[in-house]
Amino acid sequence: MEFRKYATSDSGDTLDVVERPNGGLSVVLADGQTSGRGAKTISTMVVRKVISLLAEGVRDGAAARAASDYLYTERNGKVTATLNIMSADLQTNTLVLSRNNPSPVFLAQEGQIDCLSSDSQSIGTSRNIRPSIFEVALQTGLTVVMYTDGLNHAGDRYGNPLDVCTTLEAILDEQDPSAQEIADSLLALAVRLDQGRPDDDMSVVVLRTKPNTGDSIRRMTVRLPVGFD
Amino acid sequence: MEFRKYATSDSGDTLDVVERPNGGLSVVLADGQTSGRGAKTISTMVVRKVISLLAEGVRDGAAARAASDYLYTERNGKVTATLNIMSADLQTNTLVLSRNNPSPVFLAQEGQIDCLSSDSQSIGTSRNIRPSIFEVALQTGLTVVMYTDGLNHAGDRYGNPLDVCTTLEAILDEQDPSAQEIADSLLALAVRLDQGRPDDDMSVVVLRTKPNTGDSIRRMTVRLPVGFD
Repeated sequence: MEFRKYATSDSGDTLDVVERPNGGLSVVLADGQTSGRGAKTISTMVVRKVISLLAEGVRDGAAARAASDYLYTERNGKVTATLNIMSADLQTNTLVLSRNNPSPVFLAQEGQIDCLSSDSQSIGTSRNIRPSIFEVALQTGLTVVMYTDGLNHAGDRYGNPLDVCTTLEAILDEQDPSAQEIADSLLALAVRLDQGRPDDDMSVVVLRTKPNTGDSIRRMTVRLPVGFD
Repeated sequence: MEFRKYATSDSGDTLDVVERPNGGLSVVLADGQTSGRGAKTISTMVVRKVISLLAEGVRDGAAARAASDYLYTERNGKVTATLNIMSADLQTNTLVLSRNNPSPVFLAQEGQIDCLSSDSQSIGTSRNIRPSIFEVALQTGLTVVMYTDGLNHAGDRYGNPLDVCTTLEAILDEQDPSAQEIADSLLALAVRLDQGRPDDDMSVVVLRTKPNTGDSIRRMTVRLPVGFD
């Protein structure tokens, strides 16, 4: 299983990964309403809340609802954020996709790509906001792509919007692309459609489940481009 | 900058990465006293506490001391854990290495390898336990290696202990190894010295600071070998 995440530096998006107490991993991605520092504060607050609940064994849906109530209470219902949770739950052996985001999530398996785009409300603006949840058995051959709306709106300004589904189909037609290659391709195309100057933060998370051909070692890599030197 | 972490599955070690609120990243690694489930509970508890404090802007040394007092209080001083924090602090532009672990930390720069092995107490067994802290200016060309004691004691049973410093020297002599290659080499050698059956969890964290030759995109990859299918 391989997760891959991309974001520009100084992003208002926040992503974190947490080990589930009963086995597996969750990836939590949030995008605050405004851009820059304010958005970062909101998205960090939301992600921290969800991560701490998941780490205590709280179920994904309950964690998303709690994060919404928390944001509603903290900011008097005046600030909204999108929230996606992608969990590989090794207790239930399912992949759980929880979405409080108008942007869809794509699920590819056995040559078929589903666009999970049912109505979904961002969190924080009213009480009792619930996530759209999709659950599928965890097996090899799954690809999931989720992202923040900077990617969804890439190219809009130039009348040339990104068609994620068609793009993903083309990428998956190539020979067994890695999660990294999929994220790289989508992000590169989105930046190109925004003519090299995206006007919103973009984050992409890609999960692929693959037959385990290697060792049983867990690996995590983080690359952080910074301005020192 | 590139971090790399390796651990066997079902490890009693816990590692987490957190974005620092004023810029940069911290990697937190803990190893609980016993092995298996009990050790995992302890190491998770310690790492969560440190991560939540760092996320609030608490300094590394204060977070380590707080985690020690917390473990001492929760477990009546009867349980100990090792704790390492490696931070790339972009506010001070320093690399901060905080250690409550008898195992040393290695710092390589300009062809020289320093073994940071001053006396250092594990946390949780008494009040007022402080970390050993080493701070160095953040610049390209730094390599840091830190690990849990499974690696430190590799080969001991067979009278053929791992000499991390000499091994690291040999690895760094090769042409610009990545953080991944360094972690891979150290872990593979440790497992070999334990004749393929390590009797303790092993985790290795490697940081390298490199000139930024690519884009300004942050990347995180996680690989989790699991038993489904």
